[in-house]
Amino acid sequence: MRFYSDNNATVCPELLAAIRDANAGPTRSYGDDRWTEALGAAFGEFFGTRTTVFPVTTGTAANALALATLVPPYGAVYAHDEAHVLRDECGAPEFFGGGLRLVSLPGDGARIDAATLEHALDAHPPSVHTVQPAAVTITQATELGRVYRPDGIAALAALAHARGLFVHMDGARIANALVTLGCEPADITWRAGVDVLSFGATKNGGLAAEAVVFFRDDLVRDFGLRRKRAGHLLSKSRYAAAQLLAYLADDVWRRNAAHANRGALAIGAACGATLMEPVEANEVFARLGEPAKAQLRALGFEFYDWGASGSGEARFVASWDQDPAEIAAFCAALGALPACRGTKSP
Amino acid sequence: MRFYSDNNATVCPELLAAIRDANAGPTRSYGDDRWTEALGAAFGEFFGTRTTVFPVTTGTAANALALATLVPPYGAVYAHDEAHVLRDECGAPEFFGGGLRLVSLPGDGARIDAATLEHALDAHPPSVHTVQPAAVTITQATELGRVYRPDGIAALAALAHARGLFVHMDGARIANALVTLGCEPADITWRAGVDVLSFGATKNGGLAAEAVVFFRDDLVRDFGLRRKRAGHLLSKSRYAAAQLLAYLADDVWRRNAAHANRGALAIGAACGATLMEPVEANEVFARLGEPAKAQLRALGFEFYDWGASGSGEARFVASWDQDPAEIAAFCAALGALPACRGTKSP
Amino acid sequence: MRFYSDNNATVCPELLAAIRDANAGPTRSYGDDRWTEALGAAFGEFFGTRTTVFPVTTGTAANALALATLVPPYGAVYAHDEAHVLRDECGAPEFFGGGLRLVSLPGDGARIDAATLEHALDAHPPSVHTVQPAAVTITQATELGRVYRPDGIAALAALAHARGLFVHMDGARIANALVTLGCEPADITWRAGVDVLSFGATKNGGLAAEAVVFFRDDLVRDFGLRRKRAGHLLSKSRYAAAQLLAYLADDVWRRNAAHANRGALAIGAACGATLMEPVEANEVFARLGEPAKAQLRALGFEFYDWGASGSGEARFVASWDQDPAEIAAFCAALGALPACRGTKSP
Amino acid sequence: MRFYSDNNATVCPELLAAIRDANAGPTRSYGDDRWTEALGAAFGEFFGTRTTVFPVTTGTAANALALATLVPPYGAVYAHDEAHVLRDECGAPEFFGGGLRLVSLPGDGARIDAATLEHALDAHPPSVHTVQPAAVTITQATELGRVYRPDGIAALAALAHARGLFVHMDGARIANALVTLGCEPADITWRAGVDVLSFGATKNGGLAAEAVVFFRDDLVRDFGLRRKRAGHLLSKSRYAAAQLLAYLADDVWRRNAAHANRGALAIGAACGATLMEPVEANEVFARLGEPAKAQLRALGFEFYDWGASGSGEARFVASWDQDPAEIAAFCAALGALPACRGTKSP
Repeated sequence: MRFYSDNNATVCPELLAAIRDANAGPTRSYGDDRWTEALGAAFGEFFGTRTTVFPVTTGTAANALALATLVPPYGAVYAHDEAHVLRDECGAPEFFGGGLRLVSLPGDGARIDAATLEHALDAHPPSVHTVQPAAVTITQATELGRVYRPDGIAALAALAHARGLFVHMDGARIANALVTLGCEPADITWRAGVDVLSFGATKNGGLAAEAVVFFRDDLVRDFGLRRKRAGHLLSKSRYAAAQLLAYLADDVWRRNAAHANRGALAIGAACGATLMEPVEANEVFARLGEPAKAQLRALGFEFYDWGASGSGEARFVASWDQDPAEIAAFCAALGALPACRGTKSP
Repeated sequence: MRFYSDNNATVCPELLAAIRDANAGPTRSYGDDRWTEALGAAFGEFFGTRTTVFPVTTGTAANALALATLVPPYGAVYAHDEAHVLRDECGAPEFFGGGLRLVSLPGDGARIDAATLEHALDAHPPSVHTVQPAAVTITQATELGRVYRPDGIAALAALAHARGLFVHMDGARIANALVTLGCEPADITWRAGVDVLSFGATKNGGLAAEAVVFFRDDLVRDFGLRRKRAGHLLSKSRYAAAQLLAYLADDVWRRNAAHANRGALAIGAACGATLMEPVEANEVFARLGEPAKAQLRALGFEFYDWGASGSGEARFVASWDQDPAEIAAFCAALGALPACRGTKSP
Repeated sequence: MRFYSDNNATVCPELLAAIRDANAGPTRSYGDDRWTEALGAAFGEFFGTRTTVFPVTTGTAANALALATLVPPYGAVYAHDEAHVLRDECGAPEFFGGGLRLVSLPGDGARIDAATLEHALDAHPPSVHTVQPAAVTITQATELGRVYRPDGIAALAALAHARGLFVHMDGARIANALVTLGCEPADITWRAGVDVLSFGATKNGGLAAEAVVFFRDDLVRDFGLRRKRAGHLLSKSRYAAAQLLAYLADDVWRRNAAHANRGALAIGAACGATLMEPVEANEVFARLGEPAKAQLRALGFEFYDWGASGSGEARFVASWDQDPAEIAAFCAALGALPACRGTKSP
Repeated sequence: MRFYSDNNATVCPELLAAIRDANAGPTRSYGDDRWTEALGAAFGEFFGTRTTVFPVTTGTAANALALATLVPPYGAVYAHDEAHVLRDECGAPEFFGGGLRLVSLPGDGARIDAATLEHALDAHPPSVHTVQPAAVTITQATELGRVYRPDGIAALAALAHARGLFVHMDGARIANALVTLGCEPADITWRAGVDVLSFGATKNGGLAAEAVVFFRDDLVRDFGLRRKRAGHLLSKSRYAAAQLLAYLADDVWRRNAAHANRGALAIGAACGATLMEPVEANEVFARLGEPAKAQLRALGFEFYDWGASGSGEARFVASWDQDPAEIAAFCAALGALPACRGTKSP
C-alpha cells in the first residue's frame, strides 16, 4: 500500500476520457488547436480574471520557465528552504534562468512571511556587486503540507511588489489548498498579489498536465520562446490541454483533492502525538521513530523518509485515487503504534 | 484535409490502449516503474544491442539533451543547414549545451557527407581561440524527406570518430526511413557508428513519446541529471514508457510508417515534374508555383509553405492515420494542375 | 622580426606615462574615480555625440558583453564568416549571451553588405520555432584588413534597424580604419547607424585597454551588472581609464595607427602580384606559396599562416611600434621573391 | 584619508617597474611569452610544489573560472554566508558555472569548519532531484579579516575530499594571512588539501594581477578554453605575468602585506571595546555606533559601512601604501571616541 507520493497515483477517468475524446482526427499542432486555445477562457473563468495559459508537462518546467521569464540571469529569487525549487529540481531554476540565484529563507510550515523577506532584503542592499532581488516564490500547499492563507500571501506580495519583486506561486498542490481553505481560487492567487502561477494537475489526477498561468499580460514577455527553446512546447498540445480543460470542468480538481485531503486528515489523526505539522492538504509528517517506521514497512506500507538520516521522521501522502480501505488499514496500523497513542505535543 | 505535418495526426489505438492499460493502480514515480525499466530491454531487442534509454516528451528535448551530454559548452556541433536542430528548435541545443555552437553544413537532400565534414574540420583547425569540434548530428529521415543509407552514415561516422567527434542521430522519422530502406534498425544506427539516437514516436502515432537511446554506456554520463534539471523527467513516467513499449511491439512503428510512406509516394507521383526531391519517407516537396498552391488551398487542402516567400514551393506530409480517400483526392487535385502534368525535370 | 600580430607590440610611451601618472595616491575603486568618470566626456568629444563608456581589458569581453546586452538568449546575431566573434573568441558571444546564435554570412573583404543580410533574413522568417534575428555585428577594419565605408555601414544599419536588429561594431582596429578613411569617427559609427561599439586600443599601443561605447543611452540597460558578473569590472579601474584618456588625447591613436598602416602599405606593395586584398589598414594578406613562406621564415621573419593548411597564404601585420628598418628589410625580402615580382592578378 | 578598501591603493613601485621592464620590444601574445611561461616555476618555488598558473585580471574572474572548471552546472558549491563569491560577485560563479549553486554556510569569523560542512552534506543526501555537492570554497584571509589555520583547512579539506568535493581557496588576501600565520605558503594551500587557489595580488600592490593556481594537473582540465571564452585571456599577457613575477620576487608580497597588517593592528587596538573580530589581516570591523561613524567622517576619514543599515558597524581596511601618519591620525581619532575607550567586551 503506497503512501509514498501522489506522483504514484493513476490518471483519473475524466482526464483519460478527455485524451480519448481529443483523439478524433487531425488538428493543428504546437497549440494552434481548439483545446489549447480554450485554456485562456477556462482558466479565466476558474480564476475570475483574464489569464494567459501555457501547458507544460512537469511542475519543474513550469516553475523554472516562469521564474526565468520574470527574472534576469543576475536576479535573486527568494524561496523557502524546503521549497521544491530549491530541494527537488536539480537546479532547474538556475539552468532556465541563466544562472539566477535562489536565496533560501526560513519560516514555519515551509511558509515565508513578509517580515522574513523584508529582513533578508534589508540585510544585503543591492549594488553592482550583488545579485539583484527579483522575485519571491511560494508553494501552495507547501512542502510541509501547510497552506498560505489569503492574508499571508497578500502581505508578502505587497512587500515584494513594493520592493520591485515579482511573486510566483508553485501550485503543484493548489487544489488541495483550495479544498482546505474553502476560498475562491482568486483569493490565493491574483487577488492576493500572485503574478504568475505554476498550476499543477498531474499529482491530482493528470497524466502529465501542468500549466503556467499569467495573471498579468505584460509579464508573459518571451515565455513562448523560452518554452519552445526548452523543449516544452508539445507538438500534440491538444492532449495536455484537453486534460486541463476536463480537470477544471465539473469540479474534477475539487473532488480529487477532497478525497486526498480526507485521507491525509485521517492519517494525521491516527498519528496522534507524532504529528509534526497540522494537516492542511494531502501530506502528513510524523516523527514515529525508526523502529515504528520499520514496523509499518514490514506490514507493507510504503512511504518516504523525512528529515536527516535516522531522524525517525516520515512523510505520508494520500492520493486522489487512494483506496479508503488502504487508508483505514494504515490508520489502524498507526493507531497500534505506542508512539501514536500518546498525547499530542504542541 | 490536412497535409500540413505529421504532428497534426492522432494517437494510434495501440498506444492509447497502452496508456489505459498502464493506468491500473499506483506505482513508483520518476521512472522506477516496470514500464520504464523495461525500455532498455525492449530497445535492446529492437536494435540488437545493449542500450540505455530515457523517455522524454519532445524531439527538441531529446536532441538538445543528447547533444548537451556529449558536447562541452565551447564545443561545435556540425549539422546540415536544413537540420531541425538549427531551424526549428529556437536554439534549444545552444541553451541545453551552455552556449555550444551549431555549425551549418551544406549537402544534397539535407544530408551531410563525409567529405563535407572533413573540409569543414580542416578549414578551421582548433586552438584556444576557437570552439572545439565535438559532434556531428544527422537527421533520419532528413528534413527534405530523404534517407541516409547505411554506408553513408558509416563513412561519416568513421571520419567523425577519427577526428574525435561523437555522432548523434535525430530520428524523429526513423521509422519512415527504416520502412524505405528495409534494413535492420542496427544498420543505420550503432552498427554504422551512431553513438546516441533521438528516437521519435510522436509523429508516427505517439501522444508525446520520444526516447534518447545511448548505444554506448560510457556516453550516458550525467544525462539523468540533465534531464531532471531541464524539467524532462516525468513523475508519471509509465505513460510515456508504456507507449514506447507498445510502439516497438507487434510492428506498430512499421505499420504506421508504411502507411504514411505510401501516402507520400502517391502524392509524390502526382506531383510529376514539380517534385523537388525523391520521396523516401513521408514528406513531399514540390515547386508548384504560388497560383497552384492557392488553387489547392481553395479546394480545402492544407499544407506548409516551403522555401523563401514567393518561391512557389510547398511541403506535403502524409501521416500514419491519413485517410486513403484524402490521399486519392489530393492526388487527383495535384494531377489536375498543369504544372504537375509536365515531364519531370532532372 | 615579428609581423605576426599587433598584439605582439609594446605599450606606447604616452599610455605607460598615463598609468604612472594615475598612480599618485589612493582613489575610489570600481570606476568611481576621476579617470573612469572622465571617459564619457572624452569619448563624447571624440565621437561628437553623447556616449556611455565602459572600460574592459579585452576585445573578446567587449564584443561578448555588448552583444549579450543587446540580444536575448534565443537571439540570432549576424556576423561575417571571417569575423573574430565567430572564429577567434572560443564561443564567448554564445557564453555571455546565454546561448545566442551567431549566423555566418559571406561577403567580399570580410564585409557584410545590406543585400546579403536582407537575403538571410528573408530566407528564414522568424516564428516560435526559430531563433529570433536580433543584431548584426561588423568589424572595422575587417579581419581581412579592409574597411567599411560610411555609406556601406549606413545601408547595412538602415536595413538592420528596419528589421528590428541592433548594429554592433567590433572596432578592434577602428583607429587604423579611421586613418585610411580620413573621415570623422562619427561617420563610421553612430552617424552611420552603429548602436554600440567595441573600441580597441590594446593592439594600437595600449596595455589592456578596450572600451564598450554606447551611442544610445537606452541600450546600456544592464551592461554594468553583466560586466561585473563576468569579472570584467576592474577594482583599479583608473589604470585602464587613464590609458584610454591618453589614447584619445593629442592624437596618440592617429599617430600610432598611421605608423602601422604605412608599414602595411609598404609590405603590401612589396607583395606585388601575391597580394590577396587591397591594404586598407595594418594587415596584409598574400598568397606567397609555401616555399616562399619557408624562405622568409628562414630569414628570421615571423608571421601567421592564413587559409587552409598548405594554401600558401600568409598574414603580415604591421604594428604601431614597428621599426622602419624592419619594414624595409621585410619589403626587400619580399621583393626578392619571384612570386612577388610578377604582375598583380586581378 | 581612505580606509575604505585596499582596492583604493596604488600600484607598488616594484610592479610598476616590472611593467616598464617588460615593455622592451615585441613578443608573442596570448601567454606565449617568457614572462607568462615563467609563472609555473615561480609559483612552484613559492609554494614548494608543481603548479599550473593562469594570470587573470580580477579576483571575481579567478574565483568563477576556477569553480566552473571544477564543478558541473548542476553542482553545489559550499561557501560561507559572508563569502565574496556569494555577496560581491553579482553571481559570477553561477554565470561561469552554467547555473551551479552556491550553498551558504554559517561559521565564526566567516570561516567554515568541517562539522558545519558535514552537517550540510548529511542534511540533503544527493539524488537525481537535487543539485550535486561538488566543491567547497574558503577565503583566506576571510571577509571578516580572520585567518584559517593550517589544521582548520586540513580538517575541512579531508572531509571535503572524503565526500568527493574539491577544495577551492579565494586568496584575495592570502599574503596578509601568510604574514599573520608566519607559515609556509604550502601550509595553508596544497599541503592542507587546497586543490585550486585564486591568488590575489591586486589589493596588495598590483595593477590588475591575479592568478589561478592549480596544485593538481588533472584538475586543470579545460581551464584555458574557459578563460579564453570568458574574455580573460590577455593578448598582452606579459604585463600581468611580469607583475606576478615581481610580486613573488624579493618578498614584495610580504613587505606590502606586513605594512597593511601593521596598520590594521594599530587601528584594531584603537577600536578598543568596539572591535568585533580579532585583527588577523588588514581589515578591522568595529561596532562604533552611527554617531561616532559620522564624527569620524566629519574629520575626513572614509570607510565602509558594515552590517545592516543603522547597525553602527564599520569596516576599516589598511593598504600596502597607507601613510603611517594617516594611521596615527586615525588611531588618535578612534581613541578619542568614548565607545573605544571602554573595556573590550569578550
